Amino acid sequence: MDKTVRICMLGAGRVGKLHTNSITRFVVGSKVVALVDPVSEILNATGDEFGILDRFNSFEEAIDKVSFDAVVITTPTFTHKPLALLSAAAGKHIFLEKPMALNLFECDEIIEATQRNQVILQLGFMRHFDPEFSAAAERIEGGEIGKPMMIKSLTHGPGLPPPWARDLKTSNGMLAEVNSHDWDCVRWLMRSDYDRVYTEVANFKGPANNIDTPNFYDNTLVNVHFESGGLGSISGICPCGYGYDARVEIVGELGIMQIGELRGQAVVVCTNRDQGLITPIFRTWPERFAWGYIYEIQHFIECIRKEKNPKVGGEEGRWSVAGVLAATRSFLEGRPVYLREVFETKEVLPSR
Amino acid sequence: MDKTVRICMLGAGRVGKLHTNSITRFVVGSKVVALVDPVSEILNATGDEFGILDRFNSFEEAIDKVSFDAVVITTPTFTHKPLALLSAAAGKHIFLEKPMALNLFECDEIIEATQRNQVILQLGFMRHFDPEFSAAAERIEGGEIGKPMMIKSLTHGPGLPPPWARDLKTSNGMLAEVNSHDWDCVRWLMRSDYDRVYTEVANFKGPANNIDTPNFYDNTLVNVHFESGGLGSISGICPCGYGYDARVEIVGELGIMQIGELRGQAVVVCTNRDQGLITPIFRTWPERFAWGYIYEIQHFIECIRKEKNPKVGGEEGRWSVAGVLAATRSFLEGRPVYLREVFETKEVLPSR
Amino acid sequence: MDKTVRICMLGAGRVGKLHTNSITRFVVGSKVVALVDPVSEILNATGDEFGILDRFNSFEEAIDKVSFDAVVITTPTFTHKPLALLSAAAGKHIFLEKPMALNLFECDEIIEATQRNQVILQLGFMRHFDPEFSAAAERIEGGEIGKPMMIKSLTHGPGLPPPWARDLKTSNGMLAEVNSHDWDCVRWLMRSDYDRVYTEVANFKGPANNIDTPNFYDNTLVNVHFESGGLGSISGICPCGYGYDARVEIVGELGIMQIGELRGQAVVVCTNRDQGLITPIFRTWPERFAWGYIYEIQHFIECIRKEKNPKVGGEEGRWSVAGVLAATRSFLEGRPVYLREVFETKEVLPSR
Amino acid sequence: MDKTVRICMLGAGRVGKLHTNSITRFVVGSKVVALVDPVSEILNATGDEFGILDRFNSFEEAIDKVSFDAVVITTPTFTHKPLALLSAAAGKHIFLEKPMALNLFECDEIIEATQRNQVILQLGFMRHFDPEFSAAAERIEGGEIGKPMMIKSLTHGPGLPPPWARDLKTSNGMLAEVNSHDWDCVRWLMRSDYDRVYTEVANFKGPANNIDTPNFYDNTLVNVHFESGGLGSISGICPCGYGYDARVEIVGELGIMQIGELRGQAVVVCTNRDQGLITPIFRTWPERFAWGYIYEIQHFIECIRKEKNPKVGGEEGRWSVAGVLAATRSFLEGRPVYLREVFETKEVLPSR
Repeated sequence: MDKTVRICMLGAGRVGKLHTNSITRFVVGSKVVALVDPVSEILNATGDEFGILDRFNSFEEAIDKVSFDAVVITTPTFTHKPLALLSAAAGKHIFLEKPMALNLFECDEIIEATQRNQVILQLGFMRHFDPEFSAAAERIEGGEIGKPMMIKSLTHGPGLPPPWARDLKTSNGMLAEVNSHDWDCVRWLMRSDYDRVYTEVANFKGPANNIDTPNFYDNTLVNVHFESGGLGSISGICPCGYGYDARVEIVGELGIMQIGELRGQAVVVCTNRDQGLITPIFRTWPERFAWGYIYEIQHFIECIRKEKNPKVGGEEGRWSVAGVLAATRSFLEGRPVYLREVFETKEVLPSR
Repeated sequence: MDKTVRICMLGAGRVGKLHTNSITRFVVGSKVVALVDPVSEILNATGDEFGILDRFNSFEEAIDKVSFDAVVITTPTFTHKPLALLSAAAGKHIFLEKPMALNLFECDEIIEATQRNQVILQLGFMRHFDPEFSAAAERIEGGEIGKPMMIKSLTHGPGLPPPWARDLKTSNGMLAEVNSHDWDCVRWLMRSDYDRVYTEVANFKGPANNIDTPNFYDNTLVNVHFESGGLGSISGICPCGYGYDARVEIVGELGIMQIGELRGQAVVVCTNRDQGLITPIFRTWPERFAWGYIYEIQHFIECIRKEKNPKVGGEEGRWSVAGVLAATRSFLEGRPVYLREVFETKEVLPSR
Repeated sequence: MDKTVRICMLGAGRVGKLHTNSITRFVVGSKVVALVDPVSEILNATGDEFGILDRFNSFEEAIDKVSFDAVVITTPTFTHKPLALLSAAAGKHIFLEKPMALNLFECDEIIEATQRNQVILQLGFMRHFDPEFSAAAERIEGGEIGKPMMIKSLTHGPGLPPPWARDLKTSNGMLAEVNSHDWDCVRWLMRSDYDRVYTEVANFKGPANNIDTPNFYDNTLVNVHFESGGLGSISGICPCGYGYDARVEIVGELGIMQIGELRGQAVVVCTNRDQGLITPIFRTWPERFAWGYIYEIQHFIECIRKEKNPKVGGEEGRWSVAGVLAATRSFLEGRPVYLREVFETKEVLPSR
Repeated sequence: MDKTVRICMLGAGRVGKLHTNSITRFVVGSKVVALVDPVSEILNATGDEFGILDRFNSFEEAIDKVSFDAVVITTPTFTHKPLALLSAAAGKHIFLEKPMALNLFECDEIIEATQRNQVILQLGFMRHFDPEFSAAAERIEGGEIGKPMMIKSLTHGPGLPPPWARDLKTSNGMLAEVNSHDWDCVRWLMRSDYDRVYTEVANFKGPANNIDTPNFYDNTLVNVHFESGGLGSISGICPCGYGYDARVEIVGELGIMQIGELRGQAVVVCTNRDQGLITPIFRTWPERFAWGYIYEIQHFIECIRKEKNPKVGGEEGRWSVAGVLAATRSFLEGRPVYLREVFETKEVLPSR
């Protein structure tokens, strides 16, 4: 396949615009040929911004009327399974944003459908394509810090997530919406599956934001135990206000590695000795992972062209969901939870 | 009191030498007049190095034969209570190294004895006197980052502790020997007591070091819940090999603060572009907390001269011990443990 | 103009490959349709790597046989004038690598030819498109550090330049080949033209590299005086061995700003406490200015499409050449040299 | 000599207080026994602050009435020679602040007098005792970066110097008052004497500060050529406003080394993502060189006790003065000046 890869973008909001921008400006050989969003205002705003003429309120309509090779799914989590199954049935390759789905049943259905229809499934774990994270992963694999013993992975997001993204019922909450990448990363970088988690959560800003969603939390800290014997923590804070912060620190038998940093651009200013030095911070995730967002789509296009399996697919998506489910159960029940508990029963959370 | 404060140094090993060096070189107005250590070889080596003539194998002998105002206790944890009680009974002011004691009974006895005998009790929590930690604490108190929501405190030490310091029975293990400072710091900086902890531990290097001490671990990660609703983690790794690493990261409702850093001296070198930049790391705790070790002794001397209470005393020591006991029980029993469990019963660990 | 911008790449070596890669992978809407290089081996290697079929040993042949809109000139400095004049005469837009030309006569001819033929002329000063440099320039323009007083700009390159690039006669030497960007940047960021320069040079590694080119130097430090009254320095070291290093420090009446840093990727490792922390450095200029190289070509394409003037053109190129000439004369004559001396006479260097 | 070293402090202002504080708090074995200052108000304020009872308006009186071993001279430059000669004649060891004197005649007289009277002469070049600078110097000496090729040394001070310190006639101006340390450091770290300098100066803030001193400048940038063939720059800005900034960057045949940094305490805060990270800067020189100021006095005391020569003495002081004189003449005459010109004639500046 050598011609331009034609893409239908599902979702015209923040993430849909981000990927549309990458494809339109930075990924030679691909093109967004159709845009789908149920909200016409958003659909038209994004369509106008990027000059996409074929716009639809439903995915079915897009399939009917436009010819394309692949989809990029950027809609809310609870829509992932039906959209992925439709795409697979229509023979379209799938780039699926995280979190993969709401539970392990859904994950399994998606994986099975893509395999049966022989379409590519790539998950939106762009940290695998970030130059720093990917270099770090290679160096760990190369043995530079020895056998991994302890990892700390954090993601703090600046603003309040939308209502569906903070409700356990529609999204599995912040552990899924904010920390999906951390679940994926700790497993990737520790080179081991996790087998036990213990979670604490806190709700500091909910009252001031008039949030009365049951079990709402804006701070979480998970203690993670790995099959390898290694230890880890995942922390999430959202809204943190101060910026977009995603960093990992990992210690192996031979040494320590820090991946990423709080600081953004290397432009340092001081104009007041009582205030001190000022340096930019990453304000948003598109800033922090600018390269990752371009490279992951380039990788998806290349996998389609060369009929290769992507670096991150259904297995990574499913493990991330499993971690979220175990960690959520942990804080709901006030005890450490084993991953085997969620794998054995594939059950959804007790509260739902 | 204006004359030189005369000090009897208890313990002539690593920590004893560190404090003796501070007093001898950097603390005008104080003097080590006697040195006590049961091991004559160590006693004489340190005595010779600093020109201290009065040397004793027992503290009782020192009390008998030398006139002094205060003691600095740097001996193993299990000796703290008897030495502190003797000092108090003799009317000597006490600078007591951490951890304060093996259990809460002992802490209470020490506090009671110093109060009864009206001697000063300062704990060796030098981070309160580190310019960075103390500036940070003031800024947090001043509201700069808002109400504290989450703290992460780590202490990783380079080398294997001596046998007594890694045996739960004689020292309460690494959570006490390495992480006592973290227990103190998280409470200080979060401005709240902790009420619940959950601990994971790992043993990565024990077998290679032929360590068969029961329940030995060289990695630990504790999830800490605070009365304020805040969350935290304490991590310890020893031996980590790569340096002495003590850092805190704290997020409040208004922002984030990082205290300390991995890097040591600001001397950056690059001689090989395939290797990259090289910067010194703190190799040891005396390097990292060089100012803190001087200032804490200056503070002790000043408290004696001015009959003031030190900034860190028995209460701080006792809380640190309580955290250690709760966290140790947590990993032994595989469950979250409430601080009230150890306060209510003041019990020692179940394994002993 | 909405269709793909067709480009003829002049020069298939290091810089030609860099721009071809940008266009082929990252600049949607443009395409390298012809490749020109007198050395067939290089021509074919690059042609094969990027799948460019139309390959020529001379530019005239390319003009004859292929239809294209623009050229990117990446050949040695002494070829810039003839190639630019040919391009302009053929009505092709021009992206011209630095240094613009060997002397001010040539610069003037190029500017005049592009104006007469109404083609766009963009100079390859990619620092204007680097996110850090461009943000810094905007902040300085916005008054953040007040009126600029002093600037220091350095460029140190890792490896020995090719013979033509270190010979004053064919390239104006390192001040041109390595420091052209600095000449441009100090004028841009200080917001003032320079009027006097004094240069020192040194030859440390020439003998070991068997270089006997007259007036060869591998270290240079120029003291720059600006019309505004401001001061500056430009330093060049090549080969420096340790990496690619390009940084600016500027102090204004209100404060200091540092742009860029020695460190590359934010991946920090320590595995040996006697060695210390290790962080990557930028190894090469394509790494350091990865964004700049993409954005400058995107800007060129956009200027062609929208018939806009590029941000950096002939004027910037000409000033950079003037600085090089004045600074070279300074070290040859051992005295401060005024810019008016090179502008008034437009003369080439006395040694040639 | 084993008893306390008794010191007479000459000058009770900023620098006098700094050294008095070091001696009184941090240098066991020494004591300020007399304080001299012609201004009674300053004399009494400092005397009261440190509890020094013997206070005099003239040094002669102090010599008459108090017994002491050594002096610390912190008075303005033009008083250095007479005070040093008096001290030497009285057999007192001398710690002399920089700059050593106003010209080379004075330097030679001081050196000769101390040698004749066999008293120790230490210059106040505390950077030799700063842990970072001294470690760097040792590493350079050890060959880590190879033969030094280029050095940049800067000192920017926050506030406006007092009138005597900015007048060429009484102080040699900023090149002496602010940059004396740089003159010393570049020679020390490059391991070579300098032989030629070229200076540019600027006056940006003078008018706003109503300064009409002839030849006043607040920015200077000196191009330094070394006998080794190496190159260097010294820059001074005062008042810079933004903090106290003293850094060195040196490149050798094998690599680069950066000594010191803009940043102060490792406490990093972000509370506003539009503003970015904030880190303290060094506000003043006592903050930046806190260790250096303690260690240099400890070294002086140790040299007295052990009858050793100090690490930095008359030779270092004299070279620093020579650099200042050559660089000043350079900007006054608008040409590069050779050091041999000032050594051969020992002349004072042409303008005086």
